[in-house]
Amino acid sequence: MIRVGVVGGTGYTGVELLRVLAGHPEVSLSVITSRSEAGTSVAELFPSLRRHVELTFSAPDVEALAECDLVFYATPNGTAMQSAPELLKAGVRVVDLAADFRLKDVSLWEKWYGVPHAAPELLEDAVYGLPEINRVAIRSARLVANPGCYPTAVQLGFLPLVSEGVIALDGLIADAKSGVSGAGRKASMATLLCEASESLKAYGVPGHRHLPEIRQGLAAVCGQSVGLTFVPHLTPMIRGIHATLYARLERADIDLQVLYESRYRDEPFVDVLPADSHPETRSVRGTNMCRLAVHRPQGGKTVVTLSVIDNLAKGAATQAVQNMNIMFGFQEKTGLDQVAVVP
Amino acid sequence: MIRVGVVGGTGYTGVELLRVLAGHPEVSLSVITSRSEAGTSVAELFPSLRRHVELTFSAPDVEALAECDLVFYATPNGTAMQSAPELLKAGVRVVDLAADFRLKDVSLWEKWYGVPHAAPELLEDAVYGLPEINRVAIRSARLVANPGCYPTAVQLGFLPLVSEGVIALDGLIADAKSGVSGAGRKASMATLLCEASESLKAYGVPGHRHLPEIRQGLAAVCGQSVGLTFVPHLTPMIRGIHATLYARLERADIDLQVLYESRYRDEPFVDVLPADSHPETRSVRGTNMCRLAVHRPQGGKTVVTLSVIDNLAKGAATQAVQNMNIMFGFQEKTGLDQVAVVP
Amino acid sequence: MIRVGVVGGTGYTGVELLRVLAGHPEVSLSVITSRSEAGTSVAELFPSLRRHVELTFSAPDVEALAECDLVFYATPNGTAMQSAPELLKAGVRVVDLAADFRLKDVSLWEKWYGVPHAAPELLEDAVYGLPEINRVAIRSARLVANPGCYPTAVQLGFLPLVSEGVIALDGLIADAKSGVSGAGRKASMATLLCEASESLKAYGVPGHRHLPEIRQGLAAVCGQSVGLTFVPHLTPMIRGIHATLYARLERADIDLQVLYESRYRDEPFVDVLPADSHPETRSVRGTNMCRLAVHRPQGGKTVVTLSVIDNLAKGAATQAVQNMNIMFGFQEKTGLDQVAVVP
Amino acid sequence: MIRVGVVGGTGYTGVELLRVLAGHPEVSLSVITSRSEAGTSVAELFPSLRRHVELTFSAPDVEALAECDLVFYATPNGTAMQSAPELLKAGVRVVDLAADFRLKDVSLWEKWYGVPHAAPELLEDAVYGLPEINRVAIRSARLVANPGCYPTAVQLGFLPLVSEGVIALDGLIADAKSGVSGAGRKASMATLLCEASESLKAYGVPGHRHLPEIRQGLAAVCGQSVGLTFVPHLTPMIRGIHATLYARLERADIDLQVLYESRYRDEPFVDVLPADSHPETRSVRGTNMCRLAVHRPQGGKTVVTLSVIDNLAKGAATQAVQNMNIMFGFQEKTGLDQVAVVP
Repeated sequence: MIRVGVVGGTGYTGVELLRVLAGHPEVSLSVITSRSEAGTSVAELFPSLRRHVELTFSAPDVEALAECDLVFYATPNGTAMQSAPELLKAGVRVVDLAADFRLKDVSLWEKWYGVPHAAPELLEDAVYGLPEINRVAIRSARLVANPGCYPTAVQLGFLPLVSEGVIALDGLIADAKSGVSGAGRKASMATLLCEASESLKAYGVPGHRHLPEIRQGLAAVCGQSVGLTFVPHLTPMIRGIHATLYARLERADIDLQVLYESRYRDEPFVDVLPADSHPETRSVRGTNMCRLAVHRPQGGKTVVTLSVIDNLAKGAATQAVQNMNIMFGFQEKTGLDQVAVVP
Repeated sequence: MIRVGVVGGTGYTGVELLRVLAGHPEVSLSVITSRSEAGTSVAELFPSLRRHVELTFSAPDVEALAECDLVFYATPNGTAMQSAPELLKAGVRVVDLAADFRLKDVSLWEKWYGVPHAAPELLEDAVYGLPEINRVAIRSARLVANPGCYPTAVQLGFLPLVSEGVIALDGLIADAKSGVSGAGRKASMATLLCEASESLKAYGVPGHRHLPEIRQGLAAVCGQSVGLTFVPHLTPMIRGIHATLYARLERADIDLQVLYESRYRDEPFVDVLPADSHPETRSVRGTNMCRLAVHRPQGGKTVVTLSVIDNLAKGAATQAVQNMNIMFGFQEKTGLDQVAVVP
Repeated sequence: MIRVGVVGGTGYTGVELLRVLAGHPEVSLSVITSRSEAGTSVAELFPSLRRHVELTFSAPDVEALAECDLVFYATPNGTAMQSAPELLKAGVRVVDLAADFRLKDVSLWEKWYGVPHAAPELLEDAVYGLPEINRVAIRSARLVANPGCYPTAVQLGFLPLVSEGVIALDGLIADAKSGVSGAGRKASMATLLCEASESLKAYGVPGHRHLPEIRQGLAAVCGQSVGLTFVPHLTPMIRGIHATLYARLERADIDLQVLYESRYRDEPFVDVLPADSHPETRSVRGTNMCRLAVHRPQGGKTVVTLSVIDNLAKGAATQAVQNMNIMFGFQEKTGLDQVAVVP
Repeated sequence: MIRVGVVGGTGYTGVELLRVLAGHPEVSLSVITSRSEAGTSVAELFPSLRRHVELTFSAPDVEALAECDLVFYATPNGTAMQSAPELLKAGVRVVDLAADFRLKDVSLWEKWYGVPHAAPELLEDAVYGLPEINRVAIRSARLVANPGCYPTAVQLGFLPLVSEGVIALDGLIADAKSGVSGAGRKASMATLLCEASESLKAYGVPGHRHLPEIRQGLAAVCGQSVGLTFVPHLTPMIRGIHATLYARLERADIDLQVLYESRYRDEPFVDVLPADSHPETRSVRGTNMCRLAVHRPQGGKTVVTLSVIDNLAKGAATQAVQNMNIMFGFQEKTGLDQVAVVP
């Protein structure tokens, strides 16, 4: 049983984290902070947590958090880098669900996030929390940078192709479709039901912050830089990411189905579907699973990989809990074995 | 650990039952039958069950089912009454999620369901599986008639008012709104996304089969017949029932909030919200919870009760599992303690 | 050809008004004001209006508006009462789509809207713009108070019953379901897609501002006060109101179908469906039509009327244009003869 | 005023055609046939057409259709080729909204559609009805093959790039997202609200019938074959197609914005958005408009074009009416000048 704190538990990532932690047998939820909701009971803000979470939001307080074994930051970008250093010094381990520690190159980070980094000295030691690549390093990590939602879906989809060197690395395309919850729980016009429902659009085509994160991750796997065009789309559903990935094959003799199945054979949360399949985002809703299918239309030179996750789960909160499980030596599936609610 | 069979596991009630049973620690899922899908693996039909259910659908076979301790019928109306008698004789306990054994009056049943009843001799002993009313009888029941979705939401909402005799019993109104999954998983035009989405309509206003079921249930509680107008509506969402209930108060001195809270104080799956609340259907999605709020607008003579459930869960599959837990002496919440996935 | 101005054209009522006015052959759209968007072209804010509306939002300016023959206020409550008096003095006719001039009783208005009324002297002359009741008065009106969305659906549904004296007037119930656009186009948490989609809830049960408006309207028709319980619900769709209306019959001999058909025989925008029908909200989407069906379940004493409108159209913008057509002597259907886009 | 007939008016393409034709000032709607609904009034099947269409479905009858100036086939693939020859002989002009006459190569057609072609002799003269390419030929066409929905969006998006020779033609990618109405109005499990809502998936990745149609169209424009990967996706909305198109630039000096704007300057139904825009499908809902935006992310070698249409409108019914307008010398926008209903 470990003592766990959550900083910023009022967003969608926060409530998803609370949902999973509430049912986790190794976790004692000790502190949940929110500047704006301090004093409100968690279950009042989120009635779905009535009878499951008894805590009240408290104002952020490093001393209280320092009593925890692990603190999750479910805060906007730029928050964790302010106070995480102090917690780390106090011996608390930290998982940041935002972007503060994802990029190794501080100037690249500052360019994309538009502010100076408050704790650049931590970037080198921070471990990028994609277990399918960094499981060993995560085990002993003090600070884990939990991956972004798009980067999780895109990297898991491209990984077998990129690590085996079977595709041209200069012209990758990731066409990604996300549910609206990726935009977070905040008053906003663009994500009103009346604006986002019954419509579909691309956004951020000139450049999206997840682009350098994906490039960094893929480059780390193959040891060279990759050329990637990344186009995210807003789609009229609450949860789910569907990444459709395109690459040009450079080796004709490869059995792609075998390549994917062997790469992920031992992964508890990556499920390679049989040949000719088309995964649906709902099949992973509320779960930590990534489902993949790989195609080579008409036997040509283009490989098409379909990758689905739940953006709030494997793309955020449940992946953070998977990282926690690894960090503290729990069974990796502990608390994460739900079946998607379908339909 | 009991051996459990499911007859007709290919509908929405069936897949929901499989989802819950797959995570139930006291259940060994032994047989799942489907005439149309015999030979297909369950996980092929429902990819969300990959890695959770290893079974294959088999053709209905009384001998195989007779090996079970309990058999759930998740079949269309009129199926369970054909083969349940044989299973009961073999000592198997049965929970029917359809309507075959819900009405005590066989002629009433035949009038509303339009066919002769195949096992009228079982109607008297069948126990109506609403635990909040019949918990004791369910414990020893051989045959449980699991309530309909609307009847669950409406009865739980009216119950404290009807049993305490504080309202006029001749003019009850139940205006109920359901998600589309109530119509089941079958090829149909009326429930296509393009027909049922972005629209709302009432249906069955001249008469709906759940009307006699609700009337029978309320009459049993107060010992006299009740006059009820019941209007169901089809609403553009997958899951959820919201019943808005209207009655005329006959006693002015009653504290309705106290009435509801004391009636349901010990119920694990009925949650009375604080005064002035408005429950949302999503707060119970995928769970066995019923959330209630009671209002008396402008202090007048009309009481308005709001009652929400998940039609496939407390309105069908998880209530069936709650009944199973009671029948076999398990903790009533076993396998039913999920938090709703919100948003 | 009349010169028309729109004050506050950036909300959902505003853009709907622009859509209809853009295709109206008798209207020259002269001025559209918005404090927040002054200087922005209308088509930039609403790309659906590209190639249809060439205007640019301007800051509110009484002089420019005074050049118009008619000014629509598509503003929040409390705005029109500030500047409409000046326009009226300048001879401009005014249609207010908000609530400023709907209630005749200024103290009642101030109680429900929570601020002092800025132009109480106008309340007596303002004409309540429900053409099915007030067509003659609208013709010569200088100031029209366009009805609220719920009041339109509820009054049109109850009207034949109330005016003919066939029901008990003390226990009317209006259970109304609305799409989310009724909440307007403004940054807000409660109406995010992730909050309002896949869920349903009642709201405002203790009291809603449309309650006194409906009561006033029905009382005017029957010459006595009516007792009404009004419960609005938020439903997961963009547009549409479905009002389900309940009343107790006091005369058993009445043919309700005939009553409704004869009351509305000559109305261009009220369509009484054949007996046993259930209107769908989508059938009136984007149109000025109200569709009604009347039922008497099981031949009992309760009459159930189903009334559907588009809350932004007959419940706001197109009804305002219908009023304009009447005020200026145009054919009542001019510019309003669209077919709903279905599916 | 021309006499128009519709064969197969009960699908989504059919009802959309009726919606537009009902308001078309040059059209007298004479015959609507449906084998299954013969004898039913159109407005009974589609209540949105009450007061707009007075016709009754009749059984298909060549003699009655032969009285028309123009007949639209809104039938499944394989129907028009059976009876259109006879109508053409009788001097009736024909627009087929299905695929029977879209491909010039009969063996390619038979390979993709899986049946022998019943009227191969008509393929050569049939005009592919994409007005932006074939306007002159459409004017005098006797038989117009109305383009598919995906092919319309994809071809209009790629056209300026392909015709100007600025991209590599061997590696085009079209990632297309469609609303569910593309699957048609028929009882089906896959497109139930409960299956298709709150989820997203690709389909037909190994091969889709619109692939050869798009290839043929682009090849005709540039005079050589093109290599295209086409991946359609099913998305949880009723209407709309968003095609995201990727190509590798071969000329660095080109101003893509100018290229698109000049290509489409005179097109009434193609709207090139300003640089850095992201069109939304809802902005074209119910209209004949195609909205385009062209991007070159980070100034690299990949061009990304975003193309949106309404699949039932510009992707089917309104494009058919645009073709009719051209064939009969009406103003091209006659009856097609609606503003999208937003929100």
